[in-house]
Amino acid sequence: MISAEILCIGDELLIGQVINSNAAWMGRELGLVGIRVMRHTAIADEKKEIISALDEAILRADIVLITGGLGPTRDDITKHTLAEYFNSKLIFNEQAFENVVRLFSLRGRQVPETGKSQADLPEVCTPIYNELGTAPGMWFEKDGKVIVSMPGVPHEMQGMMTGRVIPELKKKFKTPKIIHKTILTQGVGESIIAERIADWEDNLPPYMKLAYLPATGMVRLRLSAMGSQERLEREVDEKLEQVIPLIAEYIYGYGEEKLEEIIGRLLVQQGKTLAIAESCSGGYVSHLVTSVAGSSAYYRGSVIPYANDLKQSILHITPAHFTTVGAVSEEVAREMALHVKALFKSDYAISTTGIAGPAGATPEKQVGTVWIGIATPDEVITRKVLLGNNRLRVIEVTGITALNMLRKELLKKA
Amino acid sequence: MISAEILCIGDELLIGQVINSNAAWMGRELGLVGIRVMRHTAIADEKKEIISALDEAILRADIVLITGGLGPTRDDITKHTLAEYFNSKLIFNEQAFENVVRLFSLRGRQVPETGKSQADLPEVCTPIYNELGTAPGMWFEKDGKVIVSMPGVPHEMQGMMTGRVIPELKKKFKTPKIIHKTILTQGVGESIIAERIADWEDNLPPYMKLAYLPATGMVRLRLSAMGSQERLEREVDEKLEQVIPLIAEYIYGYGEEKLEEIIGRLLVQQGKTLAIAESCSGGYVSHLVTSVAGSSAYYRGSVIPYANDLKQSILHITPAHFTTVGAVSEEVAREMALHVKALFKSDYAISTTGIAGPAGATPEKQVGTVWIGIATPDEVITRKVLLGNNRLRVIEVTGITALNMLRKELLKKA
Repeated sequence: MISAEILCIGDELLIGQVINSNAAWMGRELGLVGIRVMRHTAIADEKKEIISALDEAILRADIVLITGGLGPTRDDITKHTLAEYFNSKLIFNEQAFENVVRLFSLRGRQVPETGKSQADLPEVCTPIYNELGTAPGMWFEKDGKVIVSMPGVPHEMQGMMTGRVIPELKKKFKTPKIIHKTILTQGVGESIIAERIADWEDNLPPYMKLAYLPATGMVRLRLSAMGSQERLEREVDEKLEQVIPLIAEYIYGYGEEKLEEIIGRLLVQQGKTLAIAESCSGGYVSHLVTSVAGSSAYYRGSVIPYANDLKQSILHITPAHFTTVGAVSEEVAREMALHVKALFKSDYAISTTGIAGPAGATPEKQVGTVWIGIATPDEVITRKVLLGNNRLRVIEVTGITALNMLRKELLKKA
Repeated sequence: MISAEILCIGDELLIGQVINSNAAWMGRELGLVGIRVMRHTAIADEKKEIISALDEAILRADIVLITGGLGPTRDDITKHTLAEYFNSKLIFNEQAFENVVRLFSLRGRQVPETGKSQADLPEVCTPIYNELGTAPGMWFEKDGKVIVSMPGVPHEMQGMMTGRVIPELKKKFKTPKIIHKTILTQGVGESIIAERIADWEDNLPPYMKLAYLPATGMVRLRLSAMGSQERLEREVDEKLEQVIPLIAEYIYGYGEEKLEEIIGRLLVQQGKTLAIAESCSGGYVSHLVTSVAGSSAYYRGSVIPYANDLKQSILHITPAHFTTVGAVSEEVAREMALHVKALFKSDYAISTTGIAGPAGATPEKQVGTVWIGIATPDEVITRKVLLGNNRLRVIEVTGITALNMLRKELLKKA
């Protein structure tokens, strides 16, 4: 099996100012194409350290992926060290410089003196252009091994890995066939899923493996298979067809889909629009919806009446509710959804009202109590959830739960 | 200087199922007591890997801290490997077993067969008892070097480090003083900062080091100093006092502060309130503001009139603007801020209107063009920014820029 090592350069990792999320992301992506990561190493921005770590890694692995230390400032010495390591000069690269100019001009700025040096690259490397930042990546080969240097900024590294490095590695090395399929679930913990599918999991063939990947408010189930047989993908699909009915009510999608993309697609298909009235989630539901390119086609807008008097003056919630059932109640969630739908002239509406914490609990309502409302063209569905006492988690799970409730209502009309 | 290496054992780190947060935590805590972490290494649960990584680390560092691989299941082989490495037998440890019994009885359980083996420890180690879990830690010494093995469960490792390992290391090694101070900047790239402060940076003494740590829309500058002199912290502060005036207009805070916390604190201090009207940022500014616990004391609420007709019907923006200057304009940003302030009865207001992309550009306005407005009790400040063509980045930098503009207005009244 083809092996890789990951070398992350940066004092900020060693002193703990930054957690090394790049190594985990790369391990996951490489695993998907059948390359096994054998070691991560994090080292200082020091020439001696970089050279000794690289020497050792090249001895052990087929592929060495380096991140970090490519910025224009003087603490970033990776590029000079690599040029020296591969006995090569830095030469000015026109295409890399055009990219620097493009990125600065997008922000209405001139290229500063230090920006020019970003386009100097070791003569022996194949440059990897960086759509998202000024530092290009560098691909080196030595004795049949591949060494790639990329920026440490996560989205820049991810763009290069996905767009260029992984496709090139797949071309260069013969990797086994690996199939991964992912089921996305919401609203249930991994132990409950594990119980439901225990028999199915016990009967998986030895070349298939199930991984539970929990994230905030959701659990992804990834079924992986490795082998050379023609029918491998068909076999994986057959296993999925067996397990899906066992947990159907928790599944919201497959693969890399996001809930906000799924509801966007359904709204576009049905030619319907959405408005949102959020209280405890404070803008997070709207942020999810508007993070999708093209959302202006179906998203009308939101109101966030955080203060109770605004719930009355802007959204016309019945004043008596606040002294009887309170702002965190089914009645208020219902009216918020109905009224924002009318006020913003949408077909559907989402509402949230709850106690994100840490303050705000009452004897009857603990922190993490949230009411969610979904107004459809015909009715309002409401649901109470209890989401624990971590403020950010309450906000995030409220958002995911609300979008999944909306998805289920949209599917009824599909 | 005393150096340490961190060795993290576990396949889950290599395949990216778990992000290595232990290494960052340990780096931070060791740095605070003057022990420099020179390397993190993550390796598989394999005897050969553990031995070779340990051999190398002991050659380089004074201290080797190992986490992971101490559970009772068969993939956890660290303990047997360490016993072999130090030519020692595993012997049953009565006190460690009592701890296992105590923990199981807390959960109303009998100790299972696999639990007993948790109390077997290499004869040559000094056990480190684990208040929070069944696996004890192990302290070894060899040729003046210290090797400590701890569980990988973060809170168990942290409990051992804080309660026992760090105090013992401070006793055994003479450690220098280390000072880190961080300046937080917004609205400028690292290359422009680097040019402004080049002379100052060149004149830093050899025992001080500056690091540039960029993140979306901001750059952190970390000045680190190491030494034994009494005046070390004072010297760092003096250097900071020199550099701060050179980049004062970009600095929004120090240390670990967040912009949304800073504006929250200023609003509380001044007894003022905030409302928000966001268009292109789609809820992200509101999400930042409401992610702060206690924000309900000053945050009134938001409106997100994404569709232009809602900008008119809800926020009463002058209809003629949409056919003359357009929705993405200074005029609309100004009215959005003023009108939401009046409608939501707040003292301050933020507005955003722009083209997040990828669609929506016009011949005059490229993707990434954003107008931001800040209404104060007395006036409205507006600013145009160009933020590039990555939708999520446009949204995030709009949020950070808007909060920083508000911070500057609040400071004028402080």
